[in-house]
Amino acid sequence: MANDKNQVRQITNMEEDFTQWYTDVCIKAELVDYTSVKGFFVLRPYGYALWENIMGQLDREFKRLGHENVAMPMLIPESLLQKEADHVEGFAPECAWITYGGSEKLEERLCVRPTSETLFCDHWHRVVHSWRDLPKLYNQWCSVLRWEKTTRPFLRHREFYWQEGHTIHASEAEAIEETERMLEVYADICENYLAMPVVRGVKTDKEKFAGAERTYTIECMMHDRKALQSGTSHYFGNGFSKAFDVEFTNKNNEKEYPYQTSWGMSTRIIGGMIMTHGDDRGLVLPPRIAPTQVMVIPIAMHKGGVREKAEELVSALAAAGIRAKADYSENSPGWKYAEYEMKGIPLRIEIGPKDIEKGECVAVRRDSGEKITVSIADAPARIAELLETVQKGLYDKALANLEEHTYTASTALEVSDIMADKGGFVKTMWCGDKECEVEMKNIAGVTSRCLPFKQEKLGDKCAVCGKTAHKMVVWGVAY
Amino acid sequence: MANDKNQVRQITNMEEDFTQWYTDVCIKAELVDYTSVKGFFVLRPYGYALWENIMGQLDREFKRLGHENVAMPMLIPESLLQKEADHVEGFAPECAWITYGGSEKLEERLCVRPTSETLFCDHWHRVVHSWRDLPKLYNQWCSVLRWEKTTRPFLRHREFYWQEGHTIHASEAEAIEETERMLEVYADICENYLAMPVVRGVKTDKEKFAGAERTYTIECMMHDRKALQSGTSHYFGNGFSKAFDVEFTNKNNEKEYPYQTSWGMSTRIIGGMIMTHGDDRGLVLPPRIAPTQVMVIPIAMHKGGVREKAEELVSALAAAGIRAKADYSENSPGWKYAEYEMKGIPLRIEIGPKDIEKGECVAVRRDSGEKITVSIADAPARIAELLETVQKGLYDKALANLEEHTYTASTALEVSDIMADKGGFVKTMWCGDKECEVEMKNIAGVTSRCLPFKQEKLGDKCAVCGKTAHKMVVWGVAY
Repeated sequence: MANDKNQVRQITNMEEDFTQWYTDVCIKAELVDYTSVKGFFVLRPYGYALWENIMGQLDREFKRLGHENVAMPMLIPESLLQKEADHVEGFAPECAWITYGGSEKLEERLCVRPTSETLFCDHWHRVVHSWRDLPKLYNQWCSVLRWEKTTRPFLRHREFYWQEGHTIHASEAEAIEETERMLEVYADICENYLAMPVVRGVKTDKEKFAGAERTYTIECMMHDRKALQSGTSHYFGNGFSKAFDVEFTNKNNEKEYPYQTSWGMSTRIIGGMIMTHGDDRGLVLPPRIAPTQVMVIPIAMHKGGVREKAEELVSALAAAGIRAKADYSENSPGWKYAEYEMKGIPLRIEIGPKDIEKGECVAVRRDSGEKITVSIADAPARIAELLETVQKGLYDKALANLEEHTYTASTALEVSDIMADKGGFVKTMWCGDKECEVEMKNIAGVTSRCLPFKQEKLGDKCAVCGKTAHKMVVWGVAY
Repeated sequence: MANDKNQVRQITNMEEDFTQWYTDVCIKAELVDYTSVKGFFVLRPYGYALWENIMGQLDREFKRLGHENVAMPMLIPESLLQKEADHVEGFAPECAWITYGGSEKLEERLCVRPTSETLFCDHWHRVVHSWRDLPKLYNQWCSVLRWEKTTRPFLRHREFYWQEGHTIHASEAEAIEETERMLEVYADICENYLAMPVVRGVKTDKEKFAGAERTYTIECMMHDRKALQSGTSHYFGNGFSKAFDVEFTNKNNEKEYPYQTSWGMSTRIIGGMIMTHGDDRGLVLPPRIAPTQVMVIPIAMHKGGVREKAEELVSALAAAGIRAKADYSENSPGWKYAEYEMKGIPLRIEIGPKDIEKGECVAVRRDSGEKITVSIADAPARIAELLETVQKGLYDKALANLEEHTYTASTALEVSDIMADKGGFVKTMWCGDKECEVEMKNIAGVTSRCLPFKQEKLGDKCAVCGKTAHKMVVWGVAY
C-alpha cells in the first residue's frame, strides 16, 4: 500500500533552490497545507502548536505589562475605513469586500479587517471621555485578510494570524514609550525564544505603516541573506484620534486629542524561524519554542524492558518540565530518525537493550548531529542543559550569519556589487531624501530596512546623491 | 465633570423587563459594547477575560482527551459549501458573501464561514488516505458569521466566538463515542464551572444540525424560565465523507468512508451565565470562572497602615491561588461596592482600621449579601472555602429553579396552560412525528428542546395526536 508515512520524505536541497526547499519544509514537516482558495492555508496541528507556543509567550508578556485582551468585529464599513486618508490609501487596494448578507445586498459594503486601527478608534470614540479612562492598553488575537497577488506559506498569506496591540494615551511621551517598549518585547521573543538575532530600528517615511507618524521595526537575516521584517510597532501621534473624533477631558478640564500606538507580530515569524535555522534535512526548531523538545526512540522494542525504560525516561523528563514524547510505532528507527529530523525536534534520544544494560541512553542533537551519551539517572538535568546549549548554539550561528553578511559601503554602486556578489545587509549614509531611496532601489535592487538605533558614522555623504548625510541606513532585499 | 465612573449605574429591574435588564447588565458591567455594524459587538476586556477563562478550561479538557488545535481558512468557496445538500440548505440563507478582492471581482464568491465542516472535509480529502491516518481529533478557536435578523449581546451575534471540534474516525462506534464524550465535556464545564445545571439529550430530527445524523444537546433553564441550548455535539455518519470524497484504506486493504463528528460551544454561554445567576444589582459570577474572585476594598485609606494591610492581604490570597485585586482609587467605598456588585465579583473584602486592630476583615458574598468576619491570618484558607460555598450555592439555586419549573403534561392544551401560567420546561410523551412537533408549537408556543437521556414513562400516548408514544420530550421556549 502506498503510504507516505512509510517513506522517508525527500526535500529539495537548500543550495539548489532555496524557495523550493522552504516550501518543501513547510509541507513535509506538516506545518501547513494548501486549500481550495489561493493564498489561504490550513495551519496543521504541528504548525498551530508552534504558533500556540509563540502566542503563549507573547500573551504572558503583554499581560505582565498591563495589557488586556479584547475582540473587535471582523468587518469594517467602507466609510469607517475611509476616515484616515493615508490609512485607507494603504489598505483599500487589498481589502476583501462583503456585498451580500444572506440574499440581501448590503447598503454599504464591508471589508474583512486587513488591520483594526479603525475599529479600535470607533470603539474609543464611544468609551474614552476623561483622563480617568486613559491609558487603554488593548490587544487582540485574530486573523486578518489582505488580498495579495503572490502568496507563500507563512510569509504571505491572504489570511494570516497575528496579534494586534492598540493603545491610547493622554500624552505623547507615554505613547512613544509604549511603542518602544513593545518593540523590545518583539526583540526579546526573537532573540531569546526563536534564537533569531535582530536589527532594531526605525523605518523611513517611505516604508512606514499607512497612517503612522513613525514605525519601529526589527529586521532579521534569513539563511539566504534576505531580510525579514519580523515585528513592527507604530506611533500614530494624534492623527487617528482627530480623524475619529476621540477626545478626552484632561485634568485641567480641557478637551484634548489622545495619542495612539499599534504593534503586531504574525505567523510570518514562523517562516522566519524556518529560514533562519532549517537545513537540508528539514526544520530545525529552537528548544524554547519547540512543541516537542525531545523524542525518545526505543531500539529493538521487541526486547523485554525497552518500552518500559523508554516510558520511564519520558516521565522523568516530563517531570523536569521537558516536553518529551516517545514513538512506539512499528516504523523502523531509521524512518523515525528522518521523520523527527524533518520536524526539527531539537534532541532525539536513542535507547536500546545495550544502553539500558549500561544505564545509559544516547542523545542526538538535531542542529549538529552530535551524539552524547547520557546516564539515564542524570538524564533530566543533562537533557535540560543540552537543550539550553542547542538554543544558544542556534542563536550564535544565526548571529554569525548576520554579522558575516553585514557590509558597509559608500556608494550605491558598491551596494550593488555587494548584493550581486554576496547578498546580505549593507550599511550606508543617507541624506534622508525619498528620491535617494528610490534611486538606491533602481541601482542596487535593495530597499531600506531601517535606520538602526545603533547609528554609526560611516563618513558624511549620502551614498546616492553625495550630499551631506547624518543618518545611517541598513539596506537589503526583503521577503 | 460628568463621568459615569463617579456614579452608581442604574439598571432596569429584572421582574419589570427581563430583556432590558439583560442588556443593561451586558453594557453596564462592561462586558460588551455596540459597534458601527448591526449585530457586531466588541468584547471588552472584562467580557473577553470571562471568555478566556472558559476557553482555558475547555482547551485543557480537549487536549487531555487527545485533541489538537488547528486553523482552517475563514472563507468557503460557494461550490464547496454546496457539496452537502442539507448543510447548504441550512446555512446559505445566513451567509455573508465576499464578491471583491481589492478592485477585482471574484470568479466565484466566497462566504465567511458560518461553521467549518466543509473546510475540514476539504482538508481531510487531501490528507486522509489510510487507517493509519485515523482518527484525527481537531479543534479550532475562531469566530464565525451568521447574518441573523434579530441580534442581542452574546445570545445572537452576527459574528460570534466559539470553538468547533471536528473529528474523523474509522468506525461508526468510535465516532458516536466521541460525540457523546464531548457532550459530557460541555455538561461538565456548565455544571462544575459555570454553575449551570443541564438537561442532556438528543435533538429531534426537526431540530438537529443541518447535515447531521444525530445532534446531542445540553439545555439550560434561564432565570426567566426560558431554555438556552448551551452546547451541541453532532454525529454525521459518513454523509460528509461521501459528499467530499474522503476515503481511507482499511486494515483489509479495502476502501471505506470514514465517520465524522463536530461539536461546539460559543460565547453564547456567557449570556446563559448572566441569565442564570444575575440579579437586580447586576452580574453574578461563579467563582471558578470569575476573572477576579475577590475584590479587596480598603476603608478609610488615608489612615496609616490600611493600604499596606490590604496589599498584604491581596498577596496572601494570590499566593493561595485566589484571583484577588484591591481598589485603591479615590472613589468612595459605597461607589466601589456598587461597581463590583455590578461586575459580579463573587466576594468583596472590606478592611478598615477597626478591623485591622482586631486582626480581622469582612467578606461579603455577592450572591447572598451575607457578611462573614474572617481573621486576616486565616483569610487564604477561609476565603478559598467561601468561594467554593458560593460556587455550590449558585449551582443549587439554579438547580432548584430548573426542578421547580419542570412540569409534566399529557396533552398539548395542558402544556399551553402551564406555559401561560408559569413557564419552564414541560415533559410529555411524543409519538415521534414531525407533524405533532409542529402542532405542539401552534398550540402551546413551545419547541422540542430534546429527548432527554433520562427517559421517563409518563403514559403511552402522544400528547398531541394521542397515538402510541414511547419517547419523552422536554418542551420549552428557547432563546
